[in-house]
Amino acid sequence: MPRLATAPRVADLVLPGLAGGGDAPAYSRLAEALRRTIVDGRLPEGTRLPSERDLTGPVGLSRTTVTRAYAELRAQGYLTTRRGSGSVVQVPSVPGGRVDHLLAPAALDAGALDLTVTAPAAPPGIAEAYARATEDLGAYLCGTGYYPSGLPVLRERIADRFTGRGLATTPDQVLITPGALAAVAVSLRALIHRRDRVLIETPTYPNAIATLEGAGARTVPHPIDHLHHDWDVEALDRSAQHSGARSAYLIPDFHNPSGALMTSTQRAQVGRALRRHGVVPVIDESLVELALEGQSMPEPLGAHVPVAVTVGSASKSFWGGLRVGWLRAPRARMEEMAASRLRLDLGVPVLEQLVLVHLLDRAEEILVEHRARLRERRDVLVDTLHAQLPDWEVRVPAGGMALWFRLPEGSSTALARGARRYDVALAAGPNFAAGGGLDGWIRLPFVLPPEQLREVVPRLSAAWEDVLAGRVGTARAGGEREPGRRIIA
Amino acid sequence: MPRLATAPRVADLVLPGLAGGGDAPAYSRLAEALRRTIVDGRLPEGTRLPSERDLTGPVGLSRTTVTRAYAELRAQGYLTTRRGSGSVVQVPSVPGGRVDHLLAPAALDAGALDLTVTAPAAPPGIAEAYARATEDLGAYLCGTGYYPSGLPVLRERIADRFTGRGLATTPDQVLITPGALAAVAVSLRALIHRRDRVLIETPTYPNAIATLEGAGARTVPHPIDHLHHDWDVEALDRSAQHSGARSAYLIPDFHNPSGALMTSTQRAQVGRALRRHGVVPVIDESLVELALEGQSMPEPLGAHVPVAVTVGSASKSFWGGLRVGWLRAPRARMEEMAASRLRLDLGVPVLEQLVLVHLLDRAEEILVEHRARLRERRDVLVDTLHAQLPDWEVRVPAGGMALWFRLPEGSSTALARGARRYDVALAAGPNFAAGGGLDGWIRLPFVLPPEQLREVVPRLSAAWEDVLAGRVGTARAGGEREPGRRIIA
Repeated sequence: MPRLATAPRVADLVLPGLAGGGDAPAYSRLAEALRRTIVDGRLPEGTRLPSERDLTGPVGLSRTTVTRAYAELRAQGYLTTRRGSGSVVQVPSVPGGRVDHLLAPAALDAGALDLTVTAPAAPPGIAEAYARATEDLGAYLCGTGYYPSGLPVLRERIADRFTGRGLATTPDQVLITPGALAAVAVSLRALIHRRDRVLIETPTYPNAIATLEGAGARTVPHPIDHLHHDWDVEALDRSAQHSGARSAYLIPDFHNPSGALMTSTQRAQVGRALRRHGVVPVIDESLVELALEGQSMPEPLGAHVPVAVTVGSASKSFWGGLRVGWLRAPRARMEEMAASRLRLDLGVPVLEQLVLVHLLDRAEEILVEHRARLRERRDVLVDTLHAQLPDWEVRVPAGGMALWFRLPEGSSTALARGARRYDVALAAGPNFAAGGGLDGWIRLPFVLPPEQLREVVPRLSAAWEDVLAGRVGTARAGGEREPGRRIIA
Repeated sequence: MPRLATAPRVADLVLPGLAGGGDAPAYSRLAEALRRTIVDGRLPEGTRLPSERDLTGPVGLSRTTVTRAYAELRAQGYLTTRRGSGSVVQVPSVPGGRVDHLLAPAALDAGALDLTVTAPAAPPGIAEAYARATEDLGAYLCGTGYYPSGLPVLRERIADRFTGRGLATTPDQVLITPGALAAVAVSLRALIHRRDRVLIETPTYPNAIATLEGAGARTVPHPIDHLHHDWDVEALDRSAQHSGARSAYLIPDFHNPSGALMTSTQRAQVGRALRRHGVVPVIDESLVELALEGQSMPEPLGAHVPVAVTVGSASKSFWGGLRVGWLRAPRARMEEMAASRLRLDLGVPVLEQLVLVHLLDRAEEILVEHRARLRERRDVLVDTLHAQLPDWEVRVPAGGMALWFRLPEGSSTALARGARRYDVALAAGPNFAAGGGLDGWIRLPFVLPPEQLREVVPRLSAAWEDVLAGRVGTARAGGEREPGRRIIA
């Protein structure tokens, strides 16, 4: 039986949209408000809507009006009727075919600008860390080089950083992995049984969806209120209670793609909800070091959920080419985690771990520069978009590496397709949608150098004109790969 | 329905053993011959034996004799009666508890000698390769560092080496992974569906069993004739035909643990059998560079099976601390392989790949020294064992990193337990048994420096005396971890 969105809940979601809509008849305005709510991911695919009769009171419309609105949504492909379940949300397919959440890389032409990857070049200080690590390496060459749980010296540094951030941690609670995604893969395999439900935010990081499904999870999309770059904590509580989920994958720190930062109050509330309903979260802190406004960060979400597994990575704070991540789990879980990791790989290279030790020793210094560089790039992209695409209501995130916003109209899939003609690779919104929809949204990373960001905006603008003028067709059936399908970070 | 071992097949296996046995009654000699065949893994757990009546002719014994032999094996726990299936092989549990094929690492005391890991210290030349790679790195630091399929320059080098060995390969057929085990994890996830059967040699590399099971495979143990360090090709053909296996995991080059090297003729036969029965093998070439007698190697097994996936690693040829491996697959499979890898990790560190490029450029020079060093250690271990434990019939493998042989009597689990008192960690035979059994066998790596190998033998000898004198008890129920359960390579 699909999950029911109650009538008061649906009314909360659509009433703001109903107010507008001018002279259009009421059924049409209700249908449009519901459609936007579905496309934004706030009523995920598979949700059961209240019956027409139940919705009349809360939205203050007649049964005939609600019935006509549902009929229109059915005709447009947004609702389907299931025997015994009434009206169930479905998300019409994106033109050009199925969205694949697993994004395989494809070579770009020279001169192309890649706006799919949120990973910058290495910050200054990396080369020096490599040089120092190479000096340290000698002492390790007379051993076998196998450290399946990680080098003790690195586990210690990472434990200290957790402790310093308010989550007391000892080195034996830290396992070094080949990146945060690998840490998610290891954790989930230890935490869940096959076919267990796992709550997942929508939108979210595309490759995490694939990794969770690869670990046997049935993902239950939980919409975050990305319109306001925020979490709907009450809805999360309801999802945790009713979904039967055993675990959850959450990105509380400069959420990918929305850029949202969970407040300390929300962390306490989310922690309480997860504890109450017995949900063990895997918390992805990949972007936690990227507060771009010099603001101080809230405590780790894991501090509110003793059973949580927290994963992190050097890829965003330092460099993706390092391929070092970690997980931090309760001591009682570490044996399972170590066993789970040995099924996937035998450890991270010694040298990269030594490099990260040196980077962490100079972290504040390196990160100050790294953040300043990203802040400058964010502002360049935002200012250039404001000037050249003034209709785009760009939101400015306080951290992370990407903008995430709704296009004034039209489809981001069409925009991504159109942008290819101008040698720009874009990640369309549906790539990030765990529950379908989001074709009106787009993610634009600001990791490229300023001159390239200034160069990319006129190309986006030209592609956007093509979209508005109807010059971008749909892809051939079964046809070419979408440019957005190569996001790896 | 369990797989049937036909009466002629069982007769082939037991007749050599029946010849001996002196004055013991015929039923007892048959029971003992069957028991050894089971314990050696040649009749794996779950195999259905022929009926008593069917076996009489081929072994040339009366029905009463065969019936008494079966009854004795039932009493000893080696046979069980299943309704509708007759007599089915089972392997009695090893004293001390269940064998866990996933071997988690545990710290050893200082002064302990570790004979569980077949991985040596880094050979000379590594430090220089690191230094050179660090110089090359600069050019990569201005990129994102993400190379999910591997650095083009390394894929090219590895493709060239395959081509040079007789398996024509282009760089786009090579995917770089964090080690050979990770390459097995990636391949299997792309090749099989959940619950598919996968043929696996017994004995085999313990962590591969765990990895295959982690990928959803049902492993079907196929005994290799390790008594003769050889493959029973006809039996493999039968297994491929009757098991319904979709894939197979094979180690044809200095097999781990047996050290066996598949001949060119056998490769052609095995290739034909796999092709005929539609079995796609994953071929583990981790030890292929370790021919210790200067002999030239046969062509890759993959040359006989166009659909094969071949995996390899720098861990044994160079150093485990590098954590770089690869897979080579048919071009038509590469998209699936790339997608499968993105569910587990996003790529191998740039620097380690550059290090391997430099190592491969000087491979012959480095490997000549590496092999000479291993050959010396092998000979030191073999000579010291001959002198101090003359009853042990040690076999001398022509390649690889370990001895594998049958103890003259008793249990390798007891020996491993006894060796702990002398601060030696050993991997008992059952760790390598995919189909149960092998408690009479032991693997002894020869990767430690000669002085440590000379030091370990007297300790083994003391432990062996304790075993023979009954001074080694069984482990407490549910008790301590076996020392052998930490093999990672």
